[in-house]
Amino acid sequence: MSKAIDVKQAAQLLFDNDRLALICHASPDGDTLGGAFALCGALQKLQKTAKVITPEAPSKRFDYLRYGVAVQEFEVGFAVTVDVADAALLGNVEEKYKNNTDLCIDHHISNTGYAEHLLLDSDAASACEVVYEVIMELERLGDTELMSAEIAACLYTGISTDTGCFRFGNTNAATHRRAAEIIEYGFDLTRLNYLLFDMRTRERIELEKKALESIEYYFDGKCAIISLTKAVLSGADEEDLNAISSLPRQIDGTELGVTFKEKDDNVWKISLRSKNYIDSRAICAKLGGGGHKKAAGCRIKGTYEECKNILLKEIELYI
Amino acid sequence: MSKAIDVKQAAQLLFDNDRLALICHASPDGDTLGGAFALCGALQKLQKTAKVITPEAPSKRFDYLRYGVAVQEFEVGFAVTVDVADAALLGNVEEKYKNNTDLCIDHHISNTGYAEHLLLDSDAASACEVVYEVIMELERLGDTELMSAEIAACLYTGISTDTGCFRFGNTNAATHRRAAEIIEYGFDLTRLNYLLFDMRTRERIELEKKALESIEYYFDGKCAIISLTKAVLSGADEEDLNAISSLPRQIDGTELGVTFKEKDDNVWKISLRSKNYIDSRAICAKLGGGGHKKAAGCRIKGTYEECKNILLKEIELYI
Repeated sequence: MSKAIDVKQAAQLLFDNDRLALICHASPDGDTLGGAFALCGALQKLQKTAKVITPEAPSKRFDYLRYGVAVQEFEVGFAVTVDVADAALLGNVEEKYKNNTDLCIDHHISNTGYAEHLLLDSDAASACEVVYEVIMELERLGDTELMSAEIAACLYTGISTDTGCFRFGNTNAATHRRAAEIIEYGFDLTRLNYLLFDMRTRERIELEKKALESIEYYFDGKCAIISLTKAVLSGADEEDLNAISSLPRQIDGTELGVTFKEKDDNVWKISLRSKNYIDSRAICAKLGGGGHKKAAGCRIKGTYEECKNILLKEIELYI
Repeated sequence: MSKAIDVKQAAQLLFDNDRLALICHASPDGDTLGGAFALCGALQKLQKTAKVITPEAPSKRFDYLRYGVAVQEFEVGFAVTVDVADAALLGNVEEKYKNNTDLCIDHHISNTGYAEHLLLDSDAASACEVVYEVIMELERLGDTELMSAEIAACLYTGISTDTGCFRFGNTNAATHRRAAEIIEYGFDLTRLNYLLFDMRTRERIELEKKALESIEYYFDGKCAIISLTKAVLSGADEEDLNAISSLPRQIDGTELGVTFKEKDDNVWKISLRSKNYIDSRAICAKLGGGGHKKAAGCRIKGTYEECKNILLKEIELYI
């Protein structure tokens, strides 16, 4: 188990060490990337050698996160994971770091405690809010300003993406206060919001069209199903797919939103998201899958119609 | 012209008067409604007689704004408009109040000064932020707490809808700070965000599908056009239509987004929204329309193909 430490202790550890790696989780999102690049930039300003390690290449939309960071190559002396709740999420660097992470900075209450030291704030909506506090403490330790517009843009990226731009249930007054503080460091907020939340590629538009065309309603509209065939999914962006999977549950009157994705010919990955009372996990468990009450998944083989009928029979027992 | 007054003076006027009407603009949105209901609730708590007047029925999605307000009928003694930049926006109460508004609380720099007194904060992203300051001052004058979860929900509605949930260019650090303060009065923030920003009716889903199916790209994707026929538009919600009109400009690579709406058989209302350099107003002016550089409109008669070709010839000169 990790030794739990506070912000001051975490900052002191970073301050006392060098050749630092800031490590992201696989399928890197705005929070893990934003936190790692922000901290890397701050540590480099303290004249430390520091680099970001991403187990998988980030989406191109996050290219701007690198603006405040110099590329440095070196043998790692102190390994820090950011927003990584479990070593199993480290992808192709799992073997190297699963028993070899000096510090983990996280906000997931489910953190498995794989790192030697753990700075965990499960009240924070994003890891970037915790990173921001660490940077504030590093400023005190180094008696120098570390924050910049570039670093603030990284931190804003994490806070805003992990809260769905201040819409999700993890958003509270503290989230908005942190956002306000960070925005005051001055970056192009309007441009960043456009990049993160408004811009849609032509591929995304095509995917949305196919998803909307596939919608079927069952049980008086309480269940909405979208289905995406292998051909439609080919080359689709992972973040676009995530956004689209939340679509059926958003529809007024639905209690259960279902997304069918054809992973291989006649092999369907099915995700269920429920709004209030339906136990998605119970339904998926019957079909060999698992998950949580409000979000669960399973795989079924067969044509779309066959698989859908199998699933609808189970849903009927719960809806 | 109005007499410009500050928050203290506006609060004193409200404090010294009774039989107050809080008047919204036509096509009432979250900001005008949220501000009017919030102020009405606060004034009623000060034992004043107060009511909200809406020139048009609000969308049902805003029903919850009434929760903190008692219905009172009376002859108006003091008329207050909220978020109404011009008396011409007063719809069916324009005649009654255009020369008879005692106080206007607004954030539009374009305010025409039709009211006797004007409290204008053009730095505010929403009228609700100004109303919040007035309520704070009324608390001091009345030496009593007026804010409640219900009133906070009204104010949050205005701030969040006028900023597109903190995405638009009018959002800044102060907006987030105000949101934080208001959220702390405690209402169901997650539920409200769902209602305002996530929930989509089946009708909205159908409309989006038709819009996406209609997309055409011109000039190497720099221009994207969607078209909605009279049949598709029939019965469509005004707010849904607004959201969909912003779609073509959101697409990566577009400089100009165009929406065609068939208002009558072969009569098309066309709206242009440009991203950076294209002068939408100049294009529309040539076709008898007008507007601003980044958002303009015109009407053309003919089949969709005919009208589109007329428009594309003009666009070609600017793109």
